[in-house]
Amino acid sequence: MIKTITGNKDFIESLRGKRADFLLCMSNTKTAEIPGITQAGIPGLLHLTPTLDAEFIAIGEVRSLGNIAETPKGVPTPALITRAVHLLHPFHQIDLLNLGLEVSPKLEHFRLHTFGISPSDSIERGANIPAKEVFEKAIAFAQNLTLQSDYIILGESVPAGTTTALATALALGYDAQDKFSSSFKNNPSDIKRAVLERAFSRIGNSDDLFDILSVVGDNMLIFNAGLILGLQNRNLPILLAGGTQMACVLLIVNRILQMTEGKFDSSKIALCTTKWVAEDRSSDIKALLEMNDFPLNAYYADFDFSLTDHPALRLYDQGEAKEGVGAGGALVYALLNGITKEQITRKVESFLR
Amino acid sequence: MIKTITGNKDFIESLRGKRADFLLCMSNTKTAEIPGITQAGIPGLLHLTPTLDAEFIAIGEVRSLGNIAETPKGVPTPALITRAVHLLHPFHQIDLLNLGLEVSPKLEHFRLHTFGISPSDSIERGANIPAKEVFEKAIAFAQNLTLQSDYIILGESVPAGTTTALATALALGYDAQDKFSSSFKNNPSDIKRAVLERAFSRIGNSDDLFDILSVVGDNMLIFNAGLILGLQNRNLPILLAGGTQMACVLLIVNRILQMTEGKFDSSKIALCTTKWVAEDRSSDIKALLEMNDFPLNAYYADFDFSLTDHPALRLYDQGEAKEGVGAGGALVYALLNGITKEQITRKVESFLR
Repeated sequence: MIKTITGNKDFIESLRGKRADFLLCMSNTKTAEIPGITQAGIPGLLHLTPTLDAEFIAIGEVRSLGNIAETPKGVPTPALITRAVHLLHPFHQIDLLNLGLEVSPKLEHFRLHTFGISPSDSIERGANIPAKEVFEKAIAFAQNLTLQSDYIILGESVPAGTTTALATALALGYDAQDKFSSSFKNNPSDIKRAVLERAFSRIGNSDDLFDILSVVGDNMLIFNAGLILGLQNRNLPILLAGGTQMACVLLIVNRILQMTEGKFDSSKIALCTTKWVAEDRSSDIKALLEMNDFPLNAYYADFDFSLTDHPALRLYDQGEAKEGVGAGGALVYALLNGITKEQITRKVESFLR
Repeated sequence: MIKTITGNKDFIESLRGKRADFLLCMSNTKTAEIPGITQAGIPGLLHLTPTLDAEFIAIGEVRSLGNIAETPKGVPTPALITRAVHLLHPFHQIDLLNLGLEVSPKLEHFRLHTFGISPSDSIERGANIPAKEVFEKAIAFAQNLTLQSDYIILGESVPAGTTTALATALALGYDAQDKFSSSFKNNPSDIKRAVLERAFSRIGNSDDLFDILSVVGDNMLIFNAGLILGLQNRNLPILLAGGTQMACVLLIVNRILQMTEGKFDSSKIALCTTKWVAEDRSSDIKALLEMNDFPLNAYYADFDFSLTDHPALRLYDQGEAKEGVGAGGALVYALLNGITKEQITRKVESFLR
């Protein structure tokens, strides 16, 4: 079952049976190195998470490390869910976007788009992103993107990405406190608050929108805002496969539209996330979506790990991991194409044997 | 599961979810009439095997004979596997290539390409093939081929084809003895050896590459070598769906490249075969592939008939039939598209009720 968060089900139903390309936006921010800020990966090797996620969804193995990235509590990466869907009902193509990685995925035969974007610095010291440049690279990419499928599923892998998203939304003036998700069950609010205070101290009074993004954002947020705007008039439906980070991308789009007084057709865009995000009590994605001036269809896949006994997977249902690597969008894609919760569960389990 | 014989898994993973056209190369060589040389068909009617295979994979029934071709021991043609895959996850198109048939398949609405190529004679007496002409027809066909899918799966049905392939590889100077497969569990080495001796006696000292192919080859081997070279620069991935016969095609390509000092990009080509070939102890496809100057990705489908009780199918697992009619490539295609071993087994069983 696909459930509606905002809007109605017509848009997502119109994509039933159609073919999708999966685009994974990968980026590193040194914010992830702040102790206790994220559990999206292996301590000391958090910067490898997007690299390993990309390798695993593309070819089913990780080359840049021995084992699949697990969090300290043993929660396996949501890339397992995305890969399971790709095995059960493949995406037409997987494209990889290097938006500033420490280590590039080791893959042949897959399109790995590079943009000359560097990993961003910790927002505690200022992210130091050439935001306008990243944004314009995304516009150009969107305008030249050639696809042979019917729609795009856009996923992300950015350790500490919910922290930079929260910082960005707050810095852009949204009432976003307590509305952003976390890779932890118990959102580490105290640590985040201290980080945010230091980050905001670096924003000047005369800073404009892109100045602010340069200081507290991450490359994925800025690039995807450009991608969405660049795909306007391309008549190409796009699923933002993610949780509150993708909601932040839309909040950035919203501010850009307010600044430029631009017209925007949001009817071909939807956000698709997991049940773990949609039902998360420590965040509020619906409220974030409703802060935009434009309407938006948003959905979640009614999938959980209630059919498994595997303790590492059951941690998802306890809130220890919620979203990432396009898992929510991949689940929606699976459900749109007749794949069952049982099939997905068994396939994910098969990776952990 | 798709397993790697040579190379790495990246190429085959990049084709997951993509659409394929299936091309069947059909040819007769009178070599098949030598008693005991092959069990790929009905004694006395072996020449009909490619015709019946084509009819069965295209429409699910045979028109040029009452029943599906069975070997003397009752092993059904691997066309059943290819047809099963086509029912479970259809190829985008099936194209049939008449490379010298006694009897053309009786089909409407399918593209049946004809080239004015005659069945070849027995290599015992000299195959009598206009090899250069067949090769050039393949080049022209490749250059004009229009497809609406993402890649090609190239299968073959040539009774006695492993014998002509072995003869060709040896005549071209490869250390190929005992490395070629057979439709029999126990490769009829004595019979083959006598045939080869007579065949080699017809090769003159001054014979060049194409002269040799004219005497000991078969039309499929020569045509497919031309097809592969003609598809260079077309950016069209191609799966050679077969066992040691397809390996021989590559050995021919290798000699042509050595002769012409031509450049060759093998990165868009892979050989895909069955587990029965990959694990066959009386042949060695890996060794054949490694005789080429170019690298090649090769895979096999981890599929066997362990899930069935049907005695005729269990014979495959005992080594009585191993490959043909693109079965290995079709199985890889199925696994690339989420079809399970269980589904394939049940579908093949349904043809034998």
